[in-house]
Amino acid sequence: MVRVGIVGVTGYSGRELLRYLLRHPHVTLTYLAARRLSKPTPIRDIYPELAGRLNLDYRPFAVKEAAASADLLFLALPPGVAMTVVPALLNAGTFVIDLSGDYRLMSTRTFARAYGFRHRHPQALNDALYGLPELYREHLSHTRLVANPGCYPTAAILAAAPLVAKRLIAPDGIIIDAKSGVSGAGKSLKEELLFTEANEDLRAYKANDHQHMPEINQELGRLGRSRFQVVFVPHLAPMTRGLFATVYLRLKRRATASQVQRWYNTFYRDEPFVHVLPPPALPKTARVAHTNDCELAVRVVPGGRTVIALAAIDNLGKGAAGQAIQNMNVLLGFEETAGLQ
Amino acid sequence: MVRVGIVGVTGYSGRELLRYLLRHPHVTLTYLAARRLSKPTPIRDIYPELAGRLNLDYRPFAVKEAAASADLLFLALPPGVAMTVVPALLNAGTFVIDLSGDYRLMSTRTFARAYGFRHRHPQALNDALYGLPELYREHLSHTRLVANPGCYPTAAILAAAPLVAKRLIAPDGIIIDAKSGVSGAGKSLKEELLFTEANEDLRAYKANDHQHMPEINQELGRLGRSRFQVVFVPHLAPMTRGLFATVYLRLKRRATASQVQRWYNTFYRDEPFVHVLPPPALPKTARVAHTNDCELAVRVVPGGRTVIALAAIDNLGKGAAGQAIQNMNVLLGFEETAGLQ
Amino acid sequence: MVRVGIVGVTGYSGRELLRYLLRHPHVTLTYLAARRLSKPTPIRDIYPELAGRLNLDYRPFAVKEAAASADLLFLALPPGVAMTVVPALLNAGTFVIDLSGDYRLMSTRTFARAYGFRHRHPQALNDALYGLPELYREHLSHTRLVANPGCYPTAAILAAAPLVAKRLIAPDGIIIDAKSGVSGAGKSLKEELLFTEANEDLRAYKANDHQHMPEINQELGRLGRSRFQVVFVPHLAPMTRGLFATVYLRLKRRATASQVQRWYNTFYRDEPFVHVLPPPALPKTARVAHTNDCELAVRVVPGGRTVIALAAIDNLGKGAAGQAIQNMNVLLGFEETAGLQ
Amino acid sequence: MVRVGIVGVTGYSGRELLRYLLRHPHVTLTYLAARRLSKPTPIRDIYPELAGRLNLDYRPFAVKEAAASADLLFLALPPGVAMTVVPALLNAGTFVIDLSGDYRLMSTRTFARAYGFRHRHPQALNDALYGLPELYREHLSHTRLVANPGCYPTAAILAAAPLVAKRLIAPDGIIIDAKSGVSGAGKSLKEELLFTEANEDLRAYKANDHQHMPEINQELGRLGRSRFQVVFVPHLAPMTRGLFATVYLRLKRRATASQVQRWYNTFYRDEPFVHVLPPPALPKTARVAHTNDCELAVRVVPGGRTVIALAAIDNLGKGAAGQAIQNMNVLLGFEETAGLQ
Repeated sequence: MVRVGIVGVTGYSGRELLRYLLRHPHVTLTYLAARRLSKPTPIRDIYPELAGRLNLDYRPFAVKEAAASADLLFLALPPGVAMTVVPALLNAGTFVIDLSGDYRLMSTRTFARAYGFRHRHPQALNDALYGLPELYREHLSHTRLVANPGCYPTAAILAAAPLVAKRLIAPDGIIIDAKSGVSGAGKSLKEELLFTEANEDLRAYKANDHQHMPEINQELGRLGRSRFQVVFVPHLAPMTRGLFATVYLRLKRRATASQVQRWYNTFYRDEPFVHVLPPPALPKTARVAHTNDCELAVRVVPGGRTVIALAAIDNLGKGAAGQAIQNMNVLLGFEETAGLQ
Repeated sequence: MVRVGIVGVTGYSGRELLRYLLRHPHVTLTYLAARRLSKPTPIRDIYPELAGRLNLDYRPFAVKEAAASADLLFLALPPGVAMTVVPALLNAGTFVIDLSGDYRLMSTRTFARAYGFRHRHPQALNDALYGLPELYREHLSHTRLVANPGCYPTAAILAAAPLVAKRLIAPDGIIIDAKSGVSGAGKSLKEELLFTEANEDLRAYKANDHQHMPEINQELGRLGRSRFQVVFVPHLAPMTRGLFATVYLRLKRRATASQVQRWYNTFYRDEPFVHVLPPPALPKTARVAHTNDCELAVRVVPGGRTVIALAAIDNLGKGAAGQAIQNMNVLLGFEETAGLQ
Repeated sequence: MVRVGIVGVTGYSGRELLRYLLRHPHVTLTYLAARRLSKPTPIRDIYPELAGRLNLDYRPFAVKEAAASADLLFLALPPGVAMTVVPALLNAGTFVIDLSGDYRLMSTRTFARAYGFRHRHPQALNDALYGLPELYREHLSHTRLVANPGCYPTAAILAAAPLVAKRLIAPDGIIIDAKSGVSGAGKSLKEELLFTEANEDLRAYKANDHQHMPEINQELGRLGRSRFQVVFVPHLAPMTRGLFATVYLRLKRRATASQVQRWYNTFYRDEPFVHVLPPPALPKTARVAHTNDCELAVRVVPGGRTVIALAAIDNLGKGAAGQAIQNMNVLLGFEETAGLQ
Repeated sequence: MVRVGIVGVTGYSGRELLRYLLRHPHVTLTYLAARRLSKPTPIRDIYPELAGRLNLDYRPFAVKEAAASADLLFLALPPGVAMTVVPALLNAGTFVIDLSGDYRLMSTRTFARAYGFRHRHPQALNDALYGLPELYREHLSHTRLVANPGCYPTAAILAAAPLVAKRLIAPDGIIIDAKSGVSGAGKSLKEELLFTEANEDLRAYKANDHQHMPEINQELGRLGRSRFQVVFVPHLAPMTRGLFATVYLRLKRRATASQVQRWYNTFYRDEPFVHVLPPPALPKTARVAHTNDCELAVRVVPGGRTVIALAAIDNLGKGAAGQAIQNMNVLLGFEETAGLQ
């Protein structure tokens, strides 16, 4: 059994990691930590439902202890925090899977623009692996630091990848209209996240100005060997979980519905978690809730120049904790679906 | 007081019409009818909350009685039904505001393709007025038959109109990604509309295949004197009311954010119900719930070639019953906001 | 037109008061204030949807200005605040309707136990009128200070009153099981009120320990000339509005279903807002949402010794702002339903 | 591996059984059936998300095939159906766990009154075991037919059992106020179960007239060796899953809070799924969603004569499918928590 730990266990991603790890057949949870905590606290004080199932203290984070207690650490921390602890953890020989955006961007300039502050560990940006197994599976076993993708980028990239990889899409030919459940915003005490404010409301936010945009552009750019400038509008929908991305792609040359369907089927043929639906089925977030699955469908607009690719994931599953487990599985040589079905 | 009636009062639009008409200062409700009903039934048997407020029977629909009882009739009926009663009502001299799609399309061929059956009253298609007051206000006082717009077309057309009217948009340059509350689907007993199926779910449906598409194309075409072929994907969000349309428009030539904002401000300057929000505000459906308002915002994508126009309405308000009242107000010469604030 | 104002307009009750007052036929809104505010701010900055409908500044609260600007003030403030401004307002001759719990209890000792701090204006506790028009209508025209009832007490008292007034209930014979929408908890930034925490959850809180209990005991005691000690468990349900109280009453002597139904019908016969439903109908909160109505139903348990009385109100309507308007109407001699239908 | 099957797999309980059985370590799914089905259909046609995980046809139910294919069958069928197939299945030697109410009541007269039709297999009513493992664990290994308890009875009985078993409760001393998520009503196409009708609504239904009442009376009666006549009001809350029962118990003699807490702690000390919370914690349905857990808390009303016992379960977990798995585990000699954590 590999010993694993979580730093940052009170947020929604941390809680979901706990859920997945408790039923994982090949690992054992040996370390739980918070950054700010005066003294060790039983985890059941925070999650009473774990009483009798996990007899572990939640501890003030300390690099030495963390590295001694766990072979692999999941970091589920706010932006800008992982970069302050990762260097020491890597030095101590620990594997790290970071669920924040700290190591996802390769350019420090892009990072500073997206997040509004400078990166404090820039030398690692090129070593970190962008943990989307569908694109980088073969590299996962050679890295010690995985940058777990954002929820919006996961859905958007999986929806666009087959056409981008074929270099069929113009750099300005991608529009991503995404709808997320409220847990995507984390557990922050903001008025707009109150039940009374979010219930019975649908709204856009950060229209074409979200910090996940550069991440999407970077990854589609690497895949399509081009410089993409996507249009991206995220929306908040009144549900706890679920992320739906409707991606509109302008093709450089005509394609038929059956061609596009075939390309998607082929691209994801061997993927255990990406399901390309046969027409007339369309994805729905409820069907992927509490899973690591991504449902995909494609439609071609009459005329053959525009493709609509639709993707549904659980923002806390394939969009965060589930994908982190998948990354761990590949990284450590387990079967890729272990603990995820 | 003008005498008004409603045919089809058990659906959500009919109920909402009741709510608006009961507090309207210039009309009195004199007739309520259903098509299939064996004998007159007190309306309070269906809506107990109206006991003591509306002492009216709900009656089996009969043209003669309807025409004798009301000066103006709202029809809130399933597709294909209004066209079977409108001819007689017009002959009898009654004003008609039809909330279905029966009289919105000008071409019988387009109608047959959109709705799957032939129109039975084609000669009226050119006389009916498309009741979007923001575009056709001056014609409203000359018609006897108003085709009240669909909820999706209302939001989409209002979002696109200022740029389309300026003829700045290419025929294939419009993508409409719309999100609707569940009441948009009516009160039909379909499994997918059960609480347990729609709750905690977001999904697309009829992707680029919705019967409202030809209506949008027709109206944008008239406005922009061109043949538009929009891309249109409707989604269902887990809320009762509300419709959010995110419209992506490709410009024929560059424009700046302040230009576009100014065009929208100007276009809707005198409109009582369309509110163009100053940046950084974005629309939200909760704010327009139970109103006839439309909130609009615009963003220009860097490069100046793509505009994102975002609109929020209440699908039962500006998207159905509210707009029908607004049409009646103009038609009958009342102040346009009567009963709507 | 009577000039009215609101102090505390950013919370849910304040917002609902605004909504009701804007369409009230006999009053004009002349004053809006907050306690903590550095300088006057247009109300449309907080509620953009009011732009063009209410051209009023939101001002730092000042007694003199308030008294000079309005004949009647609604106070929608957190517990313990109204008592610090009411004395000066009464001195200045202003009518006050207080929506907090500050003036609802007649005993300072009970107050201190319920709210956890001492009352600072105890001499007014006997002058304030408990504003439940169904019980105290005739006294409303003789008071200058109305203590608007809590949402739970409104539903619970209306459900129990006909039997308590008949002195049929033993002092320990009342159990109140209440379910509230989340807006009942106000707009406070507490983790448990986040959408992600409250959605898909039903839970009890403050079981038999809620600050509204003494209020219910006091009022039922006055009505039944006895000392009641109710059992009261409030619950939070995943909806924005609505309050449902299921009240179990143990009778001192047997009664039949038709007797009890008749007593309730008689007790509320002339009430414009309390609707006793004929069997088999049962109340539902959706039907009273956005209204000042209270739906009531009664059932007698076989054996005839226990009555189940069920009440549904909108916690922001009859449970707060609606009732405050009703109180104002009676206080100022308007028809009781003005602005409420 | 024991071979198990499900008859009735399209409802919510059937779907949940599938979920639990797919990850159960000691059984293999070998048979899925529907009563009405013209020909075998791949299960992935109904549940696309199972593609690649369960390669099984969904078959027209036939006793012979069922008995040959599976050692144990779960029946998740509408009321009155199980009783038509159970006799043959028992004859064929199959173990049966029935999730309907067909075998829960011991008296045919009570059955007929509760369900409105006569029992067609009355001779089995005394052989069937009421499958609440917390009460009947030791008998489970001696039965071939388990009547899986209803969701309301499960929560209500677990909440009341420790005091009833101590014979501290008078026969008319129990009031059960229960709140259920909408999935408790099954997947029936009723207008009241539409999203648009159930959302933002809380309502009571079948007040003191629910078919689960006799089941509760029977089981509490056996436990307390008395004839209970509970008062029971079920409510519908706008959430998919979750059941909360607030049970008010009148004691024959005084007890203190610490006594009652101790009795509950002791009664459920060794139970893997019933968690008695230490004060001040109270149960919440969100915490038990998707689990077989039951959270319990108790409060004593001042005076010591009334206890409030609060229970939260997932109506599809401990209230249906989870409990069915727990029953199977005991019945077949597996560890009781297998596949349930």
